[in-house]
Amino acid sequence: MKLPVSTEWVLHCATSLAQLEPGATAPAARLAEYFDVPAAYLAKQLQALVRAGALAATTGPRGGFRLARPAAEITLLQLVEAVDGASAPYECREIRQQGRGALPPEDCRNTCILAAKMDEAHEAWRHSLRHVTLADILATLPEWAPARTRSRLAVSAGRKS
Amino acid sequence: MKLPVSTEWVLHCATSLAQLEPGATAPAARLAEYFDVPAAYLAKQLQALVRAGALAATTGPRGGFRLARPAAEITLLQLVEAVDGASAPYECREIRQQGRGALPPEDCRNTCILAAKMDEAHEAWRHSLRHVTLADILATLPEWAPARTRSRLAVSAGRKS
Repeated sequence: MKLPVSTEWVLHCATSLAQLEPGATAPAARLAEYFDVPAAYLAKQLQALVRAGALAATTGPRGGFRLARPAAEITLLQLVEAVDGASAPYECREIRQQGRGALPPEDCRNTCILAAKMDEAHEAWRHSLRHVTLADILATLPEWAPARTRSRLAVSAGRKS
Repeated sequence: MKLPVSTEWVLHCATSLAQLEPGATAPAARLAEYFDVPAAYLAKQLQALVRAGALAATTGPRGGFRLARPAAEITLLQLVEAVDGASAPYECREIRQQGRGALPPEDCRNTCILAAKMDEAHEAWRHSLRHVTLADILATLPEWAPARTRSRLAVSAGRKS
């Protein structure tokens, strides 16, 4: 049970974008340099965050990515599921209905209790990540962090990355 | 983030073994027939449950698998981690320490807050599964279930499977 390596990338990118001044953006190439990760693959993941409504992408000379919503409205769950999907790790293939021990369909109208318990665990995981926003993460950073992040990441007017 | 297909197999096998009479066993081949799953691969997974201390294996003409402990002492977490390992799905590769934005080591003595939150979610998942035992699962089955399971699964004295 593994999340993609890019999960770490998007969590850090979103946290960094949350530290920019309102309206400021960072291009994928600059974010890739910032974390030394592959630019093309990172760009693909950032586009997934755009589709998920967490980031907005702008084009043009000052184009790049920024948060699509306030940091307090973007949860870790949204970011993780944007890159990994929302399907549960446990797959119930209804083996209770196959083989010598097969239960008849009328005894399988309810979800298998094992699948139900596995789903509960997945919901506990989702619940945990749904209750952490980017604003919560920012609140734990040292005071000097946002200024440092901005100076190393932001593309400002009249300045080329 | 996917659990192996065999997760369903071992959860159902352990639940079935929990319904046998004390001392009764079921061979891997019979469990494989019972659920119509590949015998050799199932046997490998059952051996993993033995190593994890959930099942005991006996040899000889009446040999097979049985629970190694009372059903109330075997949790879903033990079964799942026996086949999938206990490592967390999120991997922190410390990208905060690499690239143009690299933080110096002295600022990275604590676990990254993002990794910490991902770990909390994994612990919520583990906590959920740690609090469901095979006895809890058995308590939800219909009254007729154990007798049916035993008649289709158990290898009793003087009877060949």
